[in-house]
Amino acid sequence: MTSFKVLVVAGTHGNEINAPWLIRRWEQEPDLIKTNGIKYFSVIGNPEAYRTGRRYISRDLNRTFEPALLSSPNPIEYEVIRAKQLLSAYGPAGRDPCNLVLDLHSTTAAMGSCLVVYGRRPADLAFAALIQSQLGLPIYLHESDDLEHGFLVEAWPCGLVIEIGAVAQSLLHPKIVAQTKLVLQACFDQISKVVLGIAKFPNHLVIHRHLGSLDFPRDEDSQPEACLHPDLIGKDWIPLKKHQSLFVDSKKNIFRFKGEDLTVPVFINEAAYAEKNIAMSLTKREVWCFSSKWKEAIEGCKHN
Amino acid sequence: MTSFKVLVVAGTHGNEINAPWLIRRWEQEPDLIKTNGIKYFSVIGNPEAYRTGRRYISRDLNRTFEPALLSSPNPIEYEVIRAKQLLSAYGPAGRDPCNLVLDLHSTTAAMGSCLVVYGRRPADLAFAALIQSQLGLPIYLHESDDLEHGFLVEAWPCGLVIEIGAVAQSLLHPKIVAQTKLVLQACFDQISKVVLGIAKFPNHLVIHRHLGSLDFPRDEDSQPEACLHPDLIGKDWIPLKKHQSLFVDSKKNIFRFKGEDLTVPVFINEAAYAEKNIAMSLTKREVWCFSSKWKEAIEGCKHN
Repeated sequence: MTSFKVLVVAGTHGNEINAPWLIRRWEQEPDLIKTNGIKYFSVIGNPEAYRTGRRYISRDLNRTFEPALLSSPNPIEYEVIRAKQLLSAYGPAGRDPCNLVLDLHSTTAAMGSCLVVYGRRPADLAFAALIQSQLGLPIYLHESDDLEHGFLVEAWPCGLVIEIGAVAQSLLHPKIVAQTKLVLQACFDQISKVVLGIAKFPNHLVIHRHLGSLDFPRDEDSQPEACLHPDLIGKDWIPLKKHQSLFVDSKKNIFRFKGEDLTVPVFINEAAYAEKNIAMSLTKREVWCFSSKWKEAIEGCKHN
Repeated sequence: MTSFKVLVVAGTHGNEINAPWLIRRWEQEPDLIKTNGIKYFSVIGNPEAYRTGRRYISRDLNRTFEPALLSSPNPIEYEVIRAKQLLSAYGPAGRDPCNLVLDLHSTTAAMGSCLVVYGRRPADLAFAALIQSQLGLPIYLHESDDLEHGFLVEAWPCGLVIEIGAVAQSLLHPKIVAQTKLVLQACFDQISKVVLGIAKFPNHLVIHRHLGSLDFPRDEDSQPEACLHPDLIGKDWIPLKKHQSLFVDSKKNIFRFKGEDLTVPVFINEAAYAEKNIAMSLTKREVWCFSSKWKEAIEGCKHN
């Protein structure tokens, strides 16, 4: 492999339908996103969940790329079977091996357009820095959470999640499609610059480092006893202040923020996270100096 | 039965979670909604769908109250079984017979707070007129659609759907809870006035009469080939103009409205309706004179 082969995955969650719609239009109109000659494959991540309008059938596909699950010779759960299929086809040791994956998602939270990076793999950080320097979008660095692992992008040498919101599940929305297209185009622009050796890496990377998540206040039956406070909904990426209202119950009791000033909330009221006991996640905004090792790592990917 | 017994149903669609949350809080704080002594029962319409965060398990419960389905002695589909259970418990011939039902829904469309009335049953029109005169909300009269029938409220002598949006499926939102509570309170206020003989019926009822529905433009594989136009999203209840943009495809081709001026769109981009091939429904706004027969009908309900 002397260059990049890109895997574009839409519909990893079957009820996030804007990226699958875009991908289908792209198949029919190849100029819709210009790839500058970069070879790519596009797939629906979870076709059965997509067909039935659900996030997943048996388990979240985007928590299924776990060695312990994937090593099973005869898996029963649909998503484990599907993860193995994707790796057999496009994984680093697959039939059409790809060295970079773009995993397209949407969210009910008002995240705008953003990237999600898992862990601190140098090639991912280099690629995220390139996209951030072109589009200015925020980056959520998801790490250090023992409850959440097995993400799709981690099974490829380099990969990013593109996350766009707010949009309801199973809802086609032209603005979400347009935002997805814009970020996907930027990814291909930057990949082709890396291939040509003309990528302009920035001096800094601004990330929002995951600190943990907050659940809803719950009653004795583990049901949410309060909603998110209306003033907080839609305020993703805006730093919290100490004692700020987070939740409100039906008696108008307020549950206030007790953490540090400048903690930045993300994924406020993502519908799919209630089952994970997440009302929002908390991050710390950090400015990191760009490392030459990141550049070497992404340039190394194309020579794998 | 000498007065009203009210059945309040939340979660008829399992992924519309705001009304179930309100009902649960109400169970724990009986003063949350004042019933003025009116006897009521509150239930989760589709508990299995609610538990699993889906609209339904086998079929839409709110299209299942059909004589042909309900007469089956040994139904297999979960929702047919559940419909029979609800009727056995609270139907007009049930163990705890109710004569009025309130069916609480939410929608991803920007419908605000509204009522949905099925057919032209005089008691429903009287009740809807009372709520409209108190709150000023719009009423969608759903009728004359051969593809859509078997609605829950039709199985009770009098009943309304309360529809609140926009909110994503499976998303708890304090504003949606507050709007649901407000309309539910108005319903109990008006029912108690009917019981006391002091209801003030208005002279007119403004309804939006269902004319039909528009599907997305579709390609040769029956997939949507265009999105709703961004200018139209969120514009429920606002009359369309001839040649107004309805849909836009990925090549920016516009699909325009070819119908009559003053047609009023509703349920624009309701996520659950894509499977029904409905991108929006079209209505005609009409002002009807209040009929004394409607008043007699709702007053008759309490003496059933």
